Amino acid sequence: MTPIDPTDFRDINPGERLLMGPGPSDVPARVLQALAAPCIGHLDPYFLATMNQTQQLLRYLFQTANGLTIPVSATGSAGMEACFANLVECGDEVVVAVNGVFGTRMCDIVQRIGGKLVRVDAEWGRAVDPAAVAAAVKGCRPKVVAVVHAETSTGACTPLEDISTIAHAAGALLLVDCVTSLGGMSVPIDPLQVDAAYSGTQKCLSCPPGLSPVTFSAAAVKALEQRKHPVVSWYLDLSMVRDYWGGDRKYHHTAPVNMVYALREALRLIAEEGLEARFARHRLNHRALVAGLEAMGLAMLVPAEERLPMLNAVRIPEGVNDAKVRQALLSEFAIEIGGGLGQFAGKVWRVGLMGHSCRRRNVMLFLAALETVLKAQGFKARPGAQAAADSVYTSAPA
Amino acid sequence: MTPIDPTDFRDINPGERLLMGPGPSDVPARVLQALAAPCIGHLDPYFLATMNQTQQLLRYLFQTANGLTIPVSATGSAGMEACFANLVECGDEVVVAVNGVFGTRMCDIVQRIGGKLVRVDAEWGRAVDPAAVAAAVKGCRPKVVAVVHAETSTGACTPLEDISTIAHAAGALLLVDCVTSLGGMSVPIDPLQVDAAYSGTQKCLSCPPGLSPVTFSAAAVKALEQRKHPVVSWYLDLSMVRDYWGGDRKYHHTAPVNMVYALREALRLIAEEGLEARFARHRLNHRALVAGLEAMGLAMLVPAEERLPMLNAVRIPEGVNDAKVRQALLSEFAIEIGGGLGQFAGKVWRVGLMGHSCRRRNVMLFLAALETVLKAQGFKARPGAQAAADSVYTSAPA
Repeated sequence: MTPIDPTDFRDINPGERLLMGPGPSDVPARVLQALAAPCIGHLDPYFLATMNQTQQLLRYLFQTANGLTIPVSATGSAGMEACFANLVECGDEVVVAVNGVFGTRMCDIVQRIGGKLVRVDAEWGRAVDPAAVAAAVKGCRPKVVAVVHAETSTGACTPLEDISTIAHAAGALLLVDCVTSLGGMSVPIDPLQVDAAYSGTQKCLSCPPGLSPVTFSAAAVKALEQRKHPVVSWYLDLSMVRDYWGGDRKYHHTAPVNMVYALREALRLIAEEGLEARFARHRLNHRALVAGLEAMGLAMLVPAEERLPMLNAVRIPEGVNDAKVRQALLSEFAIEIGGGLGQFAGKVWRVGLMGHSCRRRNVMLFLAALETVLKAQGFKARPGAQAAADSVYTSAPA
Repeated sequence: MTPIDPTDFRDINPGERLLMGPGPSDVPARVLQALAAPCIGHLDPYFLATMNQTQQLLRYLFQTANGLTIPVSATGSAGMEACFANLVECGDEVVVAVNGVFGTRMCDIVQRIGGKLVRVDAEWGRAVDPAAVAAAVKGCRPKVVAVVHAETSTGACTPLEDISTIAHAAGALLLVDCVTSLGGMSVPIDPLQVDAAYSGTQKCLSCPPGLSPVTFSAAAVKALEQRKHPVVSWYLDLSMVRDYWGGDRKYHHTAPVNMVYALREALRLIAEEGLEARFARHRLNHRALVAGLEAMGLAMLVPAEERLPMLNAVRIPEGVNDAKVRQALLSEFAIEIGGGLGQFAGKVWRVGLMGHSCRRRNVMLFLAALETVLKAQGFKARPGAQAAADSVYTSAPA
């Protein structure tokens, strides 16, 4: 038993940051206000209505009519686990395309639940080649084909059209990680016939981390209903979770009431902006950021046509100290960016332009701050970063 | 794709409630303020310090020196699953004492992960008899003996001393559900040699739902380290979660930053009040509530010596409509109480006196409101409820 002096603990006061890392992104004041609304019972009529509205807004964002569209009551990684754990049974074959950390994590999860993993390894920092997926699918009878739409670890975007065709031609369900893409670029669940997808709240939704939006198609629900064995995870068993979020309101767990308030408000902000305007904003700020970085003499990791707008991996120049640059950005400018993950640790920075963080003022401040910090590290940035970014904003938007 | 009109969605505005159900309980303003502090990166030095402080405060509350003491990033049921999934492997024998809904849930989880369930059924609404646990333990070689300290579905308290002795004499680990007891009565993890325990934030901690405090003893950690197979849940695998919360800060998932702020503040409030004062407050208000209810002519479900202070199951009198009473309390007085669960659905009300909700003013208001509502239902409450409660407050506290 540890004695404790409560006066050792001060008020929560994180100060201000500009969050330009791989998430969380800056949370708008309206979302924080919603988060702090009085907590009420999770079976209160007001909260039940709030759940319904949250689902309605999620369907809009996912571009789907899927009934089973809910925020799983845990962070994005739990959404990943929920999708696999509900669709894959022991012995089922699963094709997973791996081009970064999160594809690797998918493989880990598939193996833990006893799935038979067919792994398609692609180069990190590049999109997955649909031909490689097609080849893998030919050699097996997959129940699920899984792919990461937006690899947060590298900034590479894998288009979903061809992989969807390949998966469905093989009779498989298409499972998509859209943790980083949802809310920042189009994730058209119904038009692309995605069967299961999961995301997180702290990326382009600009809500604090804590929930994982998930959607299941009719085919995915059918697979869930036809399982031979119960889902190994009680907490993530969507056959029960959906009775709780659905009309029956059958008690399962206690929903994270205040986080749902916040998610609803974040989604409402997205609906107010409109999907197309929001996606265009992400593309525009991305183009300006890249123009500025390249003008400075820095190089992007991912080829132009495969880049995500909201997650920009920049190669760390020779002789520049990774950690010192990030520390200086944080301590001198209160700007957070991310370091590299996995094989890119120490080799790239990950600069996020997600949701509320994705604004012209932030791009300009970041370019100025990075230039200052790099100078202190002895890196001779070429002049003209600001002018290059400016010219993107003043020319016609993408 | 569902078209949406954002003006259909109004500001979050739940209004005021008095939460006297089985949880969530009323959240103090300081906790809501902490919840709404700016979100920062989950690897930010300020947040890492906040994580450390949260662990320190949790150890104080759990009365433990356990290193592995963390809030699992999901609600209380995920804490239950985390404890079982990390300690039980396929084929391991597990004794579960069942005297309500949450013991039943334990059994479900044990079976999903492949544990060999040895179920000890006790009467619902009563404490578990240690002799029944001893008998069950004799017939097998259990790796884990699991018991619910505070059955939220019935209001029965099962003392842990004898069951701890029985479990350890059999070489088993003791796993305890303290979702409803933690923060409202003593849960002395180290003195009672509890090996694994989980709780929730929305009961006697008076923080919104969304996190599950969990603690593992050295013996439990050893069992985790000696597993033959990986934990089936990636998200809840404490061998990875502890590297994230521990010194290495090895990335696992993104912690729910704002929920951790809120939990830290709720724990700080507990430390300021002091454990003994807090527990005495719960006992006192419980005694006053029961005195008032019994004076009115109502009967408690659980025998006096087996009652929880924070969850009071009251028998619904003959001829009184369960749902109408609860609806009237909510619509006329903005008071939430809980209905019965499982075999007690429609037979009892569950009146919570948890954390911030556990106050004299709330007891007095509730007794007055219930009397009014019952009168409208044709139930003739005996006079004197208020005087009976008053006399508890004015005599010496328990």
